[in-house]
Amino acid sequence: MHISFFCKDDNASAWLDDLRAALPQAIVTPWQPGAALADLAVVWAPPQHMFDEQTKLRTIFNVGAGVDALMQLRLPPQALVVRLDDAGMAVQMAEYVCHAVSQYTRGFDRYQSAAHDANWVRRPPLNRAEFPVGIMGLGVLGQRVAQALQHFEYPVQGWSRTLKAISGVRCYAGPSQLAEFLASSRLLVCLLPLTPETKGILNLATLSQLQPNGYLINVARGAHLVEADLLALLDSGHLAGATLDVFRTEPLPPSHPFWRHPRIRVTPHISASTLPRQSMAQIVGKIQALARGEPVSAIVNPNHGY
Amino acid sequence: MHISFFCKDDNASAWLDDLRAALPQAIVTPWQPGAALADLAVVWAPPQHMFDEQTKLRTIFNVGAGVDALMQLRLPPQALVVRLDDAGMAVQMAEYVCHAVSQYTRGFDRYQSAAHDANWVRRPPLNRAEFPVGIMGLGVLGQRVAQALQHFEYPVQGWSRTLKAISGVRCYAGPSQLAEFLASSRLLVCLLPLTPETKGILNLATLSQLQPNGYLINVARGAHLVEADLLALLDSGHLAGATLDVFRTEPLPPSHPFWRHPRIRVTPHISASTLPRQSMAQIVGKIQALARGEPVSAIVNPNHGY
Repeated sequence: MHISFFCKDDNASAWLDDLRAALPQAIVTPWQPGAALADLAVVWAPPQHMFDEQTKLRTIFNVGAGVDALMQLRLPPQALVVRLDDAGMAVQMAEYVCHAVSQYTRGFDRYQSAAHDANWVRRPPLNRAEFPVGIMGLGVLGQRVAQALQHFEYPVQGWSRTLKAISGVRCYAGPSQLAEFLASSRLLVCLLPLTPETKGILNLATLSQLQPNGYLINVARGAHLVEADLLALLDSGHLAGATLDVFRTEPLPPSHPFWRHPRIRVTPHISASTLPRQSMAQIVGKIQALARGEPVSAIVNPNHGY
Repeated sequence: MHISFFCKDDNASAWLDDLRAALPQAIVTPWQPGAALADLAVVWAPPQHMFDEQTKLRTIFNVGAGVDALMQLRLPPQALVVRLDDAGMAVQMAEYVCHAVSQYTRGFDRYQSAAHDANWVRRPPLNRAEFPVGIMGLGVLGQRVAQALQHFEYPVQGWSRTLKAISGVRCYAGPSQLAEFLASSRLLVCLLPLTPETKGILNLATLSQLQPNGYLINVARGAHLVEADLLALLDSGHLAGATLDVFRTEPLPPSHPFWRHPRIRVTPHISASTLPRQSMAQIVGKIQALARGEPVSAIVNPNHGY
C-alpha cells in the first residue's frame, strides 16, 4: 500500500511520523511533483496538481470535517473521499457554541461593560423558554452541540437536508420546513456543510425570519453568510448580535467592518480545531478497516457535496 | 397551620400569593412586629426581631441555598432550618462556571482583545489535560457543576468536608487531603457553604498551592476569600485570573480594586439566582411532606452550619 501525504501545516512532519508509525507495512511519502502513484492520499488543502498526477487513488482522506475546498478540485473519478467525523472537534464545537449562547442569554457582555464603570446592576434570572436555539446542520458536530445546549436546558430545534430523529430536539428538514424552523428560533447556529445549496443561506430573507432580538452564531463556513445582510439586520435591530468564527476571506482583512462592530464577536476560525493526533488515529483506523473490507463512516457523497 | 412569611424582595407579594394558592388550608401571613405565633416560617433575609417573637416555630424554610446569614441569628432552639436544594439554581451555576472556565481555557478574553486590534492570531487547540478543575463543595450545586465540566471533558476533582463518591470525579475530603486536592487543580471553583471552618479558606496559603497559572472562580460567598491574598497572587503571577460573583461587601463598592483589575472578572452575584416560582413550589412540597410525616432534604445541621 502506497500512501501519498500532503498537509499544509507547520506540524505536518509530526503527522507524517504518526502515520508511518501506525502503518509500518505501508509506504507513506510526502507528495511532491513527479511522485510515484499512490493508492491512498491523506490531505489537507492540497493543490489541484496533486490529483492531476495521482490518477490511481482509491481513497482520499481529508484531514478535516469540511470538504468544500476539496470538492472544488478535479479528483480522480474512481476515488472515494472520506472526511473526519469528530476526532475531538465535536466537544470543542459544543463548548464554543455554549459559550457564545451564554454570553448572550446571561448578559455577560453587559456585565463586563458595567464592571468597567464599577456599576452593580443585576439582570433578572434567565428564562430559557425565551431563548430557543435552532441548529442548522445535524451531523456529528450539530448533534453534539444540541446535546450540550440541552445539558443547559435550552429549547433546541434542528434543521437538516434529510429529516433526523434526535432525542429532545424538534427536527425540521428541507426547504419546505425552513420557514417554520426559523420562526421558532431566536438564536441560530450554523453548522451546515458548504455546498451549492447552502452557500449564502444566511441572508436577509432567512435571518429576518428569526424571532426578534435574535442572534447568529456561524461556525461553519464564511460563504454561508451574506455579510451585508447581517450588517443590515444588526442596524435595523432585528438581530441583537452575532458571533462569527468563519469568514469569506480568512484571515479576515484588518479593514473589515466585522472586527470592531459593537455587536459582532470575531474569533479566528478556532471553534473546533483539527487535532492532528486524533485525526491521524481516526484515518489509520479507517485505512485498516477498508483494507479488511469493512465499511467506514463519513464517506462524502459527491452529489451532496459533503 | 399558620405560616409566617418574610422575604426582603420587590416581588415578595407574588411569592406570598403562590404560597397561599398552593396551601389553601394554611393561614399564610406576612410577618410584622406583633404578628400571631406561627408554626412555620418562610424567610429570606429576616430580621432578628422576627425570631425573638416567633417562639413556636417548628420549621424555618430559607428561600435560598446559603443559610450563613440566617445561622448568625438566634433562632428558636426547637426549629428545624431547611434550605433550598436546587430549585433551578444548579443549571444556572453549571452554565456560569462552564462559561468562566471556557473563557480562560479557550482564550476568549485574548481573542476579544485581538479583535479590537483587528488581529487574526490563532492559539493552539486546547489540551484539556492541562486544565484540571477542582471543585470545593460537592453538594447539589457542586455536583451539577462537576457534571457540566465533565460534559466538556475537563478533568474534574472535588473536595468536601466528608468524602463523596461521584462518577468520574476524583474526590478528596477534609483538611488532611486539601493540599493534595489543591496541587492537582489548576482552576479552582469555590461552592462551599460559608461556615466558621470555611471563612477565609481562599487565602495565600491555599491558593498558592494551585498549579502555576491558575484561576479562581468564586461563586459561593465573598467571605471565603481573603481579598488582599488574591491580589498578591495575581501580582506575583502565580494566579493568571479570577472570576468573582460574590464579595465581602455587596454591592461591591465603586472604589473597590476588583472592579477594574485587568485579570479579575466581576459579576454582581448572578451566577445562580433564586427562582421564586420554583423555590415556592419546592417549599410547598416540603411543607406537605413534613405534614405527612415524610422526610425532606436539605435540613440544616446546626453543628455544621449548612
